[in-house]
Amino acid sequence: MKKIFFLLAMAAVATVGFAQQALFSGQQLKSPEINADGTVTFRLMAPKAVTVQVTGDFLPKQKMTTPFGEVEVDGVADMKEEKGVWTFTTPQALAPELYSYKFRVNGMDMLDPANVYRTRDIVSFVNIFIITKQKGDCGDLYSVNNVPHGNVNRVWYDSPTLGTKRRMTIYTPPTYEEGGKYPVLYLLHGAGGDEEAWPALGRQAQILDNLIAEGKAKPMIVVMTNGNANCDAAPGEWHAGMYAPSFMGHQQGAQPKATTEEAYKDVMNYVEKHYRVLKGQKNTAICGLSMGGYHSFAISKLYPGKFDYIGLFSAAIHMGQGNQGNDINAALKADATVAAQLKALFATNPKLYWIAIGNTDFLYGQNVGYRKFLDENNYKYEYFETGEGHIWKNWRIYLTEFAQKIFK
Amino acid sequence: MKKIFFLLAMAAVATVGFAQQALFSGQQLKSPEINADGTVTFRLMAPKAVTVQVTGDFLPKQKMTTPFGEVEVDGVADMKEEKGVWTFTTPQALAPELYSYKFRVNGMDMLDPANVYRTRDIVSFVNIFIITKQKGDCGDLYSVNNVPHGNVNRVWYDSPTLGTKRRMTIYTPPTYEEGGKYPVLYLLHGAGGDEEAWPALGRQAQILDNLIAEGKAKPMIVVMTNGNANCDAAPGEWHAGMYAPSFMGHQQGAQPKATTEEAYKDVMNYVEKHYRVLKGQKNTAICGLSMGGYHSFAISKLYPGKFDYIGLFSAAIHMGQGNQGNDINAALKADATVAAQLKALFATNPKLYWIAIGNTDFLYGQNVGYRKFLDENNYKYEYFETGEGHIWKNWRIYLTEFAQKIFK
Repeated sequence: MKKIFFLLAMAAVATVGFAQQALFSGQQLKSPEINADGTVTFRLMAPKAVTVQVTGDFLPKQKMTTPFGEVEVDGVADMKEEKGVWTFTTPQALAPELYSYKFRVNGMDMLDPANVYRTRDIVSFVNIFIITKQKGDCGDLYSVNNVPHGNVNRVWYDSPTLGTKRRMTIYTPPTYEEGGKYPVLYLLHGAGGDEEAWPALGRQAQILDNLIAEGKAKPMIVVMTNGNANCDAAPGEWHAGMYAPSFMGHQQGAQPKATTEEAYKDVMNYVEKHYRVLKGQKNTAICGLSMGGYHSFAISKLYPGKFDYIGLFSAAIHMGQGNQGNDINAALKADATVAAQLKALFATNPKLYWIAIGNTDFLYGQNVGYRKFLDENNYKYEYFETGEGHIWKNWRIYLTEFAQKIFK
Repeated sequence: MKKIFFLLAMAAVATVGFAQQALFSGQQLKSPEINADGTVTFRLMAPKAVTVQVTGDFLPKQKMTTPFGEVEVDGVADMKEEKGVWTFTTPQALAPELYSYKFRVNGMDMLDPANVYRTRDIVSFVNIFIITKQKGDCGDLYSVNNVPHGNVNRVWYDSPTLGTKRRMTIYTPPTYEEGGKYPVLYLLHGAGGDEEAWPALGRQAQILDNLIAEGKAKPMIVVMTNGNANCDAAPGEWHAGMYAPSFMGHQQGAQPKATTEEAYKDVMNYVEKHYRVLKGQKNTAICGLSMGGYHSFAISKLYPGKFDYIGLFSAAIHMGQGNQGNDINAALKADATVAAQLKALFATNPKLYWIAIGNTDFLYGQNVGYRKFLDENNYKYEYFETGEGHIWKNWRIYLTEFAQKIFK
């Protein structure tokens, strides 16, 4: 019986390459392997390679020069060869975290064929693995544990404002199918992302499942929309076809009829009509990262009285008027419309206006400027600062923190 | 404003490799490119490579010897280098189809970095692309078109029979959110697969969206379960962690308390309780591929009167008693229990018992033997034979055919 199952499976495999040959020969490599001492070993069988390296976010960062300035990128480490197998072991134990990496064979990036866990990050893929040491650490929070799970739906909704049908991802908490009404968190991605970013890179369902199981977060519906008004859905998921993803959304299509913030009422109307939602300011939250932080800023001030909880994660502030640099305080003082919208928003006394950013983020200065504006106007907010910069590691932390502060 | 969006996106990319460097330099390759004459060109920048090949299902098949006999695998073609870019163009135009491929650089498989469209096939990934020539051809059917889309939910349900909470994928048709009740198709994967197989490799949502839009299929709910009773969910999606997928499901865990067919009542109970379902034999269908063909065979005979439409795609028949070879007729005659179950099933006069297989499938002989048994017993069935063998290309065709025959 094993044999026929095996043949069924083998016959079903579309192309037979290294992984399958290894299956037959019984020589499948384990990579990555988390060792007893907490270090991690990576392995790649590449008998003909001249150089093999590993690049990942657990290695010391390095700088890369781009036309727009210097950016920080993941470090690179050389792997060593023995009998055709290249190996690298981290010099130290890794702290709990979700890590990402790739191999670089003769200078060319490729994924680890022994590790099927990988996520798309705009135009490229990375392998991932999770280190967890104990219950409740961040690795544990990002893992699928033996706790009740929420359902994750890909939902098409009508947006009359944009004149299109659009796709969003909706998480319902584990008890949703048993009945009752739930508060709603709108959770927004950054530039280059889409409605698949928070579910994949952000580990949204895992974080919420685990926090809810521990009683640390209230059961809530989480709505992850697509913030590119010129896209109906993630690349390959709508009729624009299987185009290359872009950091600017989809540029081939027509210009959208409206902005993401103007069209956001369509999302909220749909969710409130089709889900068992607790309505009203105290039951509604919005947060987002980077461009999604801008959208959270813009949407919350466009719909005053809608949200009691607003989270700006590594947010770009006030981009609507172009790139005004870091003096957001001056820019907002000079913009009567936006200043009036913010005044109207804070007049509704939102329970939490939460600003989070890493201390090396290139948007740090903008956030300093925005906090100055809030301080000068006596608008109440909470501020949460972490190390490092504009990375998913921080956004997973911010979601974890924010989710525990809302609907309480 | 473009600049800041660009920096936001770049800063968000976890690792900077070829794809990103190409973005900066503006030298991003197009691969695959579907040419005006219908041929397809593949490109890979690999200046240091000694050999680069492409392997895919559009190339003539070749044989590979395994410990269990010869299997057919995708052919391989050499690519040619010029200025560091390796190129291959198919000698002929490709017919409409969803194709899969990989590159093989210095003998090592890797994916096309210029093509983010890829699907997991058990332990490995393949790049995919779709050729379509005109409305209604199979490439068009497998594409996301400008038609109303159904929602696709990942749902956790309780299985008291197995004593676990399990995950399944549920497609609801485009009109579902407007109200009404719908018939249900249970759609089962093969060995090595899981509840992500039909949505990804099988293009289930695209096929149903397009057939429903054309009025060729009735709007229906499609339930895609996990047929590995020792797995709660796809690899990485349950608490067993991020283990390597296996053609035998998850072997580290305890043996399941029951078989997939015994536990299937839990699936159906959940669906009928939580979805707006038209109940009764005439509104219920089941089909599956390979091991899922066996499950469709086994489930339909275990629940006589439940299904009016039963589809066996490239099915392994009667595996419950071990590998009885191709003389299924003799094996079934010798097994009074199974023969009685089939008698009870056919006594309910199912409207359609549909057997589909490719003429080079290694299970072809088993299906000849099973049809002989059905013929000798005057059990009514329909038979659909295609070329080729045990491949997703056939299973997408079978789903397309079967979906148009049911609930009418």
